[in-house]
Amino acid sequence: MIQNQKSKELIANWDTLQRIFIKPEDEASRKTLLKYMDQILFGLHDFLNTHVGVTEEISLKELTRDFKDTHINKDPEKKLTDVITDIIDKIAPRAVNVASPYFVGHMTSAMPFFMVHLKTIITALNQNVNKLETSKILSVIEKQILAKIHRLIFKKEESFYQNHVQSTDTSLGAFTAGGTTANLTALWVARNKLFLPEFNFEGIENEGIAKAMQEYSLERIVVLVPKRGHFSLKKAGGILGIGAKNIVPIDMDSDHRIDLENLKKTIKDLSNSKNTKIAAAVGIAGATETGLVDPLSEMAEICKENSIFFHVDAAWGGPVLLSEKYSPILKGIEKADSVTIDCHKQFYMPMTSGMIYFKDPLAMDQIAYHSNYVNRLGSVDIGIKTLEGSREANSLILDSALKIMGSRGYALLIDHGIKTTKEFAIEVHKRQIFEVITEPELNIITYRILPPDLKIKLKKASEGEKNEITNLVNEINIRVQRKQREQGQSFVSRTRFLLLGNGKTESVVLRCVIMNPMTDINILKEILDEQEEIFSKLNII
Amino acid sequence: MIQNQKSKELIANWDTLQRIFIKPEDEASRKTLLKYMDQILFGLHDFLNTHVGVTEEISLKELTRDFKDTHINKDPEKKLTDVITDIIDKIAPRAVNVASPYFVGHMTSAMPFFMVHLKTIITALNQNVNKLETSKILSVIEKQILAKIHRLIFKKEESFYQNHVQSTDTSLGAFTAGGTTANLTALWVARNKLFLPEFNFEGIENEGIAKAMQEYSLERIVVLVPKRGHFSLKKAGGILGIGAKNIVPIDMDSDHRIDLENLKKTIKDLSNSKNTKIAAAVGIAGATETGLVDPLSEMAEICKENSIFFHVDAAWGGPVLLSEKYSPILKGIEKADSVTIDCHKQFYMPMTSGMIYFKDPLAMDQIAYHSNYVNRLGSVDIGIKTLEGSREANSLILDSALKIMGSRGYALLIDHGIKTTKEFAIEVHKRQIFEVITEPELNIITYRILPPDLKIKLKKASEGEKNEITNLVNEINIRVQRKQREQGQSFVSRTRFLLLGNGKTESVVLRCVIMNPMTDINILKEILDEQEEIFSKLNII
Repeated sequence: MIQNQKSKELIANWDTLQRIFIKPEDEASRKTLLKYMDQILFGLHDFLNTHVGVTEEISLKELTRDFKDTHINKDPEKKLTDVITDIIDKIAPRAVNVASPYFVGHMTSAMPFFMVHLKTIITALNQNVNKLETSKILSVIEKQILAKIHRLIFKKEESFYQNHVQSTDTSLGAFTAGGTTANLTALWVARNKLFLPEFNFEGIENEGIAKAMQEYSLERIVVLVPKRGHFSLKKAGGILGIGAKNIVPIDMDSDHRIDLENLKKTIKDLSNSKNTKIAAAVGIAGATETGLVDPLSEMAEICKENSIFFHVDAAWGGPVLLSEKYSPILKGIEKADSVTIDCHKQFYMPMTSGMIYFKDPLAMDQIAYHSNYVNRLGSVDIGIKTLEGSREANSLILDSALKIMGSRGYALLIDHGIKTTKEFAIEVHKRQIFEVITEPELNIITYRILPPDLKIKLKKASEGEKNEITNLVNEINIRVQRKQREQGQSFVSRTRFLLLGNGKTESVVLRCVIMNPMTDINILKEILDEQEEIFSKLNII
Repeated sequence: MIQNQKSKELIANWDTLQRIFIKPEDEASRKTLLKYMDQILFGLHDFLNTHVGVTEEISLKELTRDFKDTHINKDPEKKLTDVITDIIDKIAPRAVNVASPYFVGHMTSAMPFFMVHLKTIITALNQNVNKLETSKILSVIEKQILAKIHRLIFKKEESFYQNHVQSTDTSLGAFTAGGTTANLTALWVARNKLFLPEFNFEGIENEGIAKAMQEYSLERIVVLVPKRGHFSLKKAGGILGIGAKNIVPIDMDSDHRIDLENLKKTIKDLSNSKNTKIAAAVGIAGATETGLVDPLSEMAEICKENSIFFHVDAAWGGPVLLSEKYSPILKGIEKADSVTIDCHKQFYMPMTSGMIYFKDPLAMDQIAYHSNYVNRLGSVDIGIKTLEGSREANSLILDSALKIMGSRGYALLIDHGIKTTKEFAIEVHKRQIFEVITEPELNIITYRILPPDLKIKLKKASEGEKNEITNLVNEINIRVQRKQREQGQSFVSRTRFLLLGNGKTESVVLRCVIMNPMTDINILKEILDEQEEIFSKLNII
């Protein structure tokens, strides 16, 4: 039995090594394996229950002290059971309890417990959906779930889906490592569609950007992105050779959504410069910082009029489509050319899994690559048209989760988050020292501490003074956020915006993402109470 | 208790939904959760034991028939227990049993059983190592294991690692979604290093390729890749705007490794054309198709002489560094500027996880991106310098596996694979109708069926006839490989090479990847027997 071996024996010879590959044949080792799983599921469970908010306060410097040895041991250091115990006793308490209802700072939260079971299944199957020869039915299931979500977004007719759901020639989308590579894939396709092959020119993918721009007599290609767009879009610009600088930020309106007049003006200005071409415009359905949704329908119309590829980054907001009550907020998403949705966000799946969808089932032909040993020309392998190579079957998790929860199950989660965030906004408004910065549309809110006296000062101040006061207010908010994080009871994040009437200095704001169904208004009130208390003890003013 | 609920009740109201988020408090539900895990681990175990090779023969068309419904159900379709049972009874038997010792066609194989446990742990913790605020100690562990592998590759002095292992300013590498994004990251850095900021030029990442090439008076940038390099390198060329065409293939020598003379000549030719710049040259440590290792040391010298960034794609071969016996094959890898290694290949980790390493701890500064809400300027978040955004803590799996196995445990696996592959080569040589194409250096072999009569014919044939005979031989090998795959007892893959003396037609070859420690020479003999039998029944000649 494995548990009774000394660690050296675990690998000392070939026989013991083989044993860790052979699945257990007898009842005793079966029990051992389950005992480990019990330890994992319920050891961690205790951690998740007893630690609230961000875990154990310990400085990074202190934390790193024990993790500086860079030698790999020749012999085993530990038995499996000790490794597991160590993780539960020493690692987990120093990880971040993202599942706590007091952890409302980032887009990571509690998951339904069955997600762990589903991930265990795909791990044990260890299929590689890159190619049919290492996935078979999993590739088929992946195509089906891609069609289901495509339908949720684009709502094409039944015959369209019957044609494409299992078609080996067309693609409705792809699973990706996450939202970043999903956005990258979208802009990759958009870039390539600008420079199709003609005459002796083999297309941008083959010839490169420099040649492509020469061929098309261009000097600059740009992508238009709302100022509050995710930084992966800028990164994509850099990677794709477009240039991060050419991911042109469009100003927000006073409502913190893309300013349509500004968008139109930018398009007009760029269209006048004859050596510039717009590869794509991006709308955000659930901005990372504010959760706000751009006017997608209007953006789609503007893009259509100007023949611009329209991408919607719905990494956060996409699953809102499952809510009958709130899906109208995403109206217009069906007019997009491509849409990003993350699975590990509001589909409540484990880290990490993203998806990219294209309205046109041939769009992904722009990024097809073949090889001799897999993904041969004419093969049905999914991996032909994906950025990533080998990929696990996360699609089976999403497929199973939708079967277990139904769209209504997800809708309950979505609706609860939005409802609770709106309640929270009312509470923030009620409290004197706070100011709501962005009213919640989905389940994210930004606000800040702005004591009444500073509020009045700010209003009366000259432009120069405004900057000074904003700096002071920022300092207050940074200190309170940090102190709260350090106290380890709860966690709210922070970011910074340029706010009207606050001078030219960006304002630090506090940010809550409310997706954990265990987070209720009472918990949020406690969080505000704590912030008030920390603020009252600051000797900054 | 969960198991006794009807599916509708599972989501019908808020209470039941909450229950799936709360971890089980009582003994009864604890037992239920474990029962599921039991079902998963041992239900799948039965599948893995009773199915050999590629599973149940069923045509793709037949397979897809039941997977065409594209509606998402409003209410739950199934209870969790039914979903799990379905996966075990209906899905798994139609998946591919990559864990079978008879499955020797691809780089996916059996894993030590504890890998499933470790993946379950990181799933339950659900940390996002992109940022410290959602990972804390896991970020620290990730930096440590990155340093351990960096040391394994580059063998720098102790003080170097003490400086960098936990440094928040420098990066020794990064975990990636897989080898493809690892290679992409390497070439991204290499591309950017060519066009550093100067005067009014802000660097290629910001300004884009077109502007960069203008600034540096270039018309073409190229990357030199051995003809047998992985197709992700070509894809990276396309994505990065270099152009897939400018990923210049260097011919192989008669030994199926990069032809150094050809490399030198290509560099010289390209250097003569003053508007062309070489961004990088790539050496392969374990080619996907043949497992062969390029002469890394010599390549490194050539690159050094010509000031060319040298990347080694050791996605496959990297872990051979853990074997005292075979690590000399990778000699010269320590001279590389960057190295790709996959975790889900010879580190025997679950799908998917890759790594990229840079010798220079500042190299990744070339691809740094910041945002306001995480990864702020000056922050210690790992995600600042990675291609991917959110990432799971796969690093904890590698760290734990090395502790459980020790480098010697891995070495046993590596050594067994290579030894068995060499035995297999001897067996193939012995059998009349076969021909070894590439003698194994690591644990991959290519060979083909070439009956003696055709062998003689081929030798004597004119150039035109050679093509004809090669086509016939190809047809034989394709049919045998397909039939064997369909028979479902075992699986060998196939690819195609241009072979000397075979005309201008590429030759189809059979390919075995021998990494499963359960695969021994007797199993391989059975596989050859089956191929002989299938061949004897072909009425093709």
